[in-house]
Amino acid sequence: MNFADQVCKIAEIKGPLVVGMDPHLELLPPYLLEKWVRERGNNLQALSYCVMEFGKLVIDAVHDVVGFVKFQMAFYELLGIPGLMVLKNLIECAREKKLKVILDGKRNDIASTASCYARAYLSGIEHPLERSIPSFWDIDALTVNPYFGRDGLAPFFEEAKKVDKGVFVVCRTTNPSAPFLQDEGRDEKVYFKVARLVEEMGEEMIGDSGFSSAGIVVGATYPEDLKILRKEFPSLLFLVPGVGAQGGGIESLRFAFREDGLGTLVNVSRGILFSYREDGSSDGRGFEKLVRMKSIDYQEKLRELWR
Amino acid sequence: MNFADQVCKIAEIKGPLVVGMDPHLELLPPYLLEKWVRERGNNLQALSYCVMEFGKLVIDAVHDVVGFVKFQMAFYELLGIPGLMVLKNLIECAREKKLKVILDGKRNDIASTASCYARAYLSGIEHPLERSIPSFWDIDALTVNPYFGRDGLAPFFEEAKKVDKGVFVVCRTTNPSAPFLQDEGRDEKVYFKVARLVEEMGEEMIGDSGFSSAGIVVGATYPEDLKILRKEFPSLLFLVPGVGAQGGGIESLRFAFREDGLGTLVNVSRGILFSYREDGSSDGRGFEKLVRMKSIDYQEKLRELWR
Repeated sequence: MNFADQVCKIAEIKGPLVVGMDPHLELLPPYLLEKWVRERGNNLQALSYCVMEFGKLVIDAVHDVVGFVKFQMAFYELLGIPGLMVLKNLIECAREKKLKVILDGKRNDIASTASCYARAYLSGIEHPLERSIPSFWDIDALTVNPYFGRDGLAPFFEEAKKVDKGVFVVCRTTNPSAPFLQDEGRDEKVYFKVARLVEEMGEEMIGDSGFSSAGIVVGATYPEDLKILRKEFPSLLFLVPGVGAQGGGIESLRFAFREDGLGTLVNVSRGILFSYREDGSSDGRGFEKLVRMKSIDYQEKLRELWR
Repeated sequence: MNFADQVCKIAEIKGPLVVGMDPHLELLPPYLLEKWVRERGNNLQALSYCVMEFGKLVIDAVHDVVGFVKFQMAFYELLGIPGLMVLKNLIECAREKKLKVILDGKRNDIASTASCYARAYLSGIEHPLERSIPSFWDIDALTVNPYFGRDGLAPFFEEAKKVDKGVFVVCRTTNPSAPFLQDEGRDEKVYFKVARLVEEMGEEMIGDSGFSSAGIVVGATYPEDLKILRKEFPSLLFLVPGVGAQGGGIESLRFAFREDGLGTLVNVSRGILFSYREDGSSDGRGFEKLVRMKSIDYQEKLRELWR
């Protein structure tokens, strides 16, 4: 079963929610941070242990109520190699719990270099002397950046196809200055051209669900765009960040889905992970109960959209 | 002295050549690859050792004839965490030899995430409980992607300024499909808009040299663009890849420099690293002598451009 079909199957059972594993250091539960810094000192290793414990608690709290997690690489890269070892470990935890793992690295470059990224995160290595070596990162899908155009994207599509994994191409981002570059264009806006290119390049990756394993990242903060893009590109999986902390509402997501409620994954990070902070006096102990409640709540609200 | 001024000083003495540390697995000297796979087996660790020995030999061979090295992260990420440990190690080797280190990661995301990348690779961490922790990666400059517009770039500029490091924003790439997105635009092409934005955002980073520590990546394969961009943006440092294997000629670079021959760094990777392959029967032993010769040769040709 290809990636898109797996996504649809899981979303049908559990719902479209993706929990974004974004461990903002300044938002982590103080009790955890204090514990690790006290025990291990003020260094990357201590912070990495803290992120690890936090991540494991989150995965334990949500694994039966959601189908997908997304790891934003920047938060782990911030901690250097210790942080990346935690990322590796948390990905393994998530997979043990049968969660689908999206790695949000927004990588890209010219083709020969992009091919390294694609093999690094999707398919693994074939080197001149020996048999292949599997990818170090055991993930299901990767986000990539479109600035290089077709030949920068091609290696990701090729490698993903080989191993039945997914690729999400950044199309319309959630941030205020997204239009600066993405709304440029003579006949068609840049982000629209990107979506069209992904549709064409991903045609061979369409599964029984009617969706392609090549999708796009479209922010919830531009709901009108979501609607237009869904209408124009029925075969593209959407990965939608920006709900909650970034200002996107859930109501506006209705039109991102196909009529049967499939085809869109909705990522929520801060709105789920750090809800303990709504109680200003909290040192964060027991935050994972709120993480679970919020996840159930988001999942329910998302499922109601097309009922 | 800020990054741009340091670059100018070194380029004046040694020349503008940057050696691109891109260890393409399929191009590595067979004698090295065979040795490590025989000793350590067919795995990421063995390949990483191989890349490490290769990289050290290159640095030893070129450190007195060039001033800059650029590490393309994709090649190290391909090998997972063992590869990133080698990257860390090679960066240290390069810095011990007083080389300026550019890390080519082309990272970017929305502001809160971009800030993680910026702190990861440039300035280090300030976390809520304690004093700051320096960046795990001890580099001088980072390449970043402009797809998110101003607010995605801002954290890189802010963090670079704090620690007097450099940022190169990808503007005009070397690949055939570069125009797909980069030539879009109503009043002005996207890559031009990007350059203008970098100029404006980097104004406060201009040093005594007249150059800003915020520069752009412009491919040698579009020489006409290089010329126009230099004329329009006299304060921007250019990092120019694409010479050699990617088809860019040296002659066409003349107009990328300011009249005094400063302001542009020229990266050559495959054209230097793998010249042993021009002798088809070679197993690569002694490749480092050719690496040195080629580097001297490129440096000389580049210096001749403005004599």
